[in-house]
Amino acid sequence: MNTVSLALRGSPRIPEETRQLIRNIAEALNYLPNHIAQSLVSRETKTIGLILTDITNPTLMRTAQAIELELADRGYGTLFATSNNDPEEEIRALEMFRSRQVDGMLIYPRSHRKLDHIRKIRQSNYPIVLLVGDPDSGIDAVCVDERRGAYKATRHLIDTGHRRIGIIDSANPLGNLEKSEGYLQALSEAGIAFEPVLTADPQGHSVMKGYWAMDQLMSAANRPTGVFAANDSLAIGALRWCQKNGVNVPKDVAIIGFDNIEFAEHAATPISSVNYAVDIVTELAVERLMRLVAAKDGLPDPRVTMIEPDLVIRESTTGRS
Amino acid sequence: MNTVSLALRGSPRIPEETRQLIRNIAEALNYLPNHIAQSLVSRETKTIGLILTDITNPTLMRTAQAIELELADRGYGTLFATSNNDPEEEIRALEMFRSRQVDGMLIYPRSHRKLDHIRKIRQSNYPIVLLVGDPDSGIDAVCVDERRGAYKATRHLIDTGHRRIGIIDSANPLGNLEKSEGYLQALSEAGIAFEPVLTADPQGHSVMKGYWAMDQLMSAANRPTGVFAANDSLAIGALRWCQKNGVNVPKDVAIIGFDNIEFAEHAATPISSVNYAVDIVTELAVERLMRLVAAKDGLPDPRVTMIEPDLVIRESTTGRS
Repeated sequence: MNTVSLALRGSPRIPEETRQLIRNIAEALNYLPNHIAQSLVSRETKTIGLILTDITNPTLMRTAQAIELELADRGYGTLFATSNNDPEEEIRALEMFRSRQVDGMLIYPRSHRKLDHIRKIRQSNYPIVLLVGDPDSGIDAVCVDERRGAYKATRHLIDTGHRRIGIIDSANPLGNLEKSEGYLQALSEAGIAFEPVLTADPQGHSVMKGYWAMDQLMSAANRPTGVFAANDSLAIGALRWCQKNGVNVPKDVAIIGFDNIEFAEHAATPISSVNYAVDIVTELAVERLMRLVAAKDGLPDPRVTMIEPDLVIRESTTGRS
Repeated sequence: MNTVSLALRGSPRIPEETRQLIRNIAEALNYLPNHIAQSLVSRETKTIGLILTDITNPTLMRTAQAIELELADRGYGTLFATSNNDPEEEIRALEMFRSRQVDGMLIYPRSHRKLDHIRKIRQSNYPIVLLVGDPDSGIDAVCVDERRGAYKATRHLIDTGHRRIGIIDSANPLGNLEKSEGYLQALSEAGIAFEPVLTADPQGHSVMKGYWAMDQLMSAANRPTGVFAANDSLAIGALRWCQKNGVNVPKDVAIIGFDNIEFAEHAATPISSVNYAVDIVTELAVERLMRLVAAKDGLPDPRVTMIEPDLVIRESTTGRS
């Protein structure tokens, strides 16, 4: 460690006179309009960094907005960065925030399992709360239980009489298997064999991607009568495919999405969905982060909170005769 | 200006010996893992700040994503902040970025006209490009010409036989009058008198706000036969109102939106819209900002680029008998 940083930490290894000189200069730097020069001394910036995987995902952005407002109420500014679901961009975003000495970070990690690079930062006593992630990560997390949500959505289709159930999920090839696993669990419990022909990877999450994934599922010799889409944009695309091809929803095929975005509620046929509880995630995640920030150098053991999601049932999965 | 900052700028007003001492200490600060300490000397952080009014607006976020990717290609990281359409939060976001010494800023200002606080920063030779704003702002800007877009949308309704044309616009009460002015200009050119009963302030921009604004417009004794909604979420809400109330679109009422988001294209009745050219805005804005950043302390005169938007005509405004 160099003389300047030792002096700023008040190390007795530096002569008092030198320490005073360096402190004077560091203090003088504060007169620049620069919170960071201050933070070299106080180590507090009253700023939190939030890393998102995809800033065009409506649910992530609703959550990001709620978090920003909640943090503002507590006197913190929020800086956002995106990883665009790219591992190198995620590392770059982490570095960008660390070098700017934000007081803590909230992170939607790209991979829910490969978390070594984040765990390392947590282990150096840096306050981090994940907004998705598995219980064994060794990092604090507050998240909607995606596995359970997908299970409930699939189970709902089974309970309303479906046996041939398709899934549209693009997170799967990224290695984020929670939704896929929930789907499989519900099938297995009901004694329904898994059929690969009933899975479609939309390779994205937009309405058009959902449209073409549905096209793929519906060209199977033996079509599904129910479809679980891993997010609502995909579900809207699937619904649109049905509209264009004279397939009635829910009579010919039932559709259920995930996230409960406003556009799903107001689609041509209102779409059933797994609710993403923005308010609860926000409240618990911010509270946890504030506790870590207040703990300074002695962080408590990591705690993972999984929120059980509710279903919102609408026309797209009811009225099946 | 204090001794330290003068010394760091190499001012001859400070004795060489003192300058060297201060420089040594500033340099020592660089050994902290802190880009900012470095930037006290080099004044470059390879980071750009982007201030948004509303991180839940799909078009803003698509643009933000495109800008982030374009800047990443050029070796710059992007930090985002939101003003939530609040003037004080906007000032706080500006300060947050300035204190972190981003190399430049891209800003969607809350008010398109009250720009003094931003102009002041520009005048101190700080690279800023606005993403909306009027030609006389004295600040560089690259923006879609909203006035012209609204004019074309209204004109399209007139050209397809409408005389009673409603407008749903919530930016109006914020003092952002461009869309409203474009609407009025088209009416006036066609000799159609403006009727206040045909305007609705949705007090927001979500689908539900559009739904209730449409409810208000359609409870007029003499209903509009065409409606211009200032964004596509509002237009989707208006369409939804028609669906629920047995009003045929476009036969009973035509609807046109603004932004051309994916959900409008794939609505129950595909919705006509004014296209927001994300790619062109991104390319020109980033190019302009890079030019300002490269110019360092001698910024060129501000230049404002207005992009003329095209209409995308779909079923919601055609087929009127």
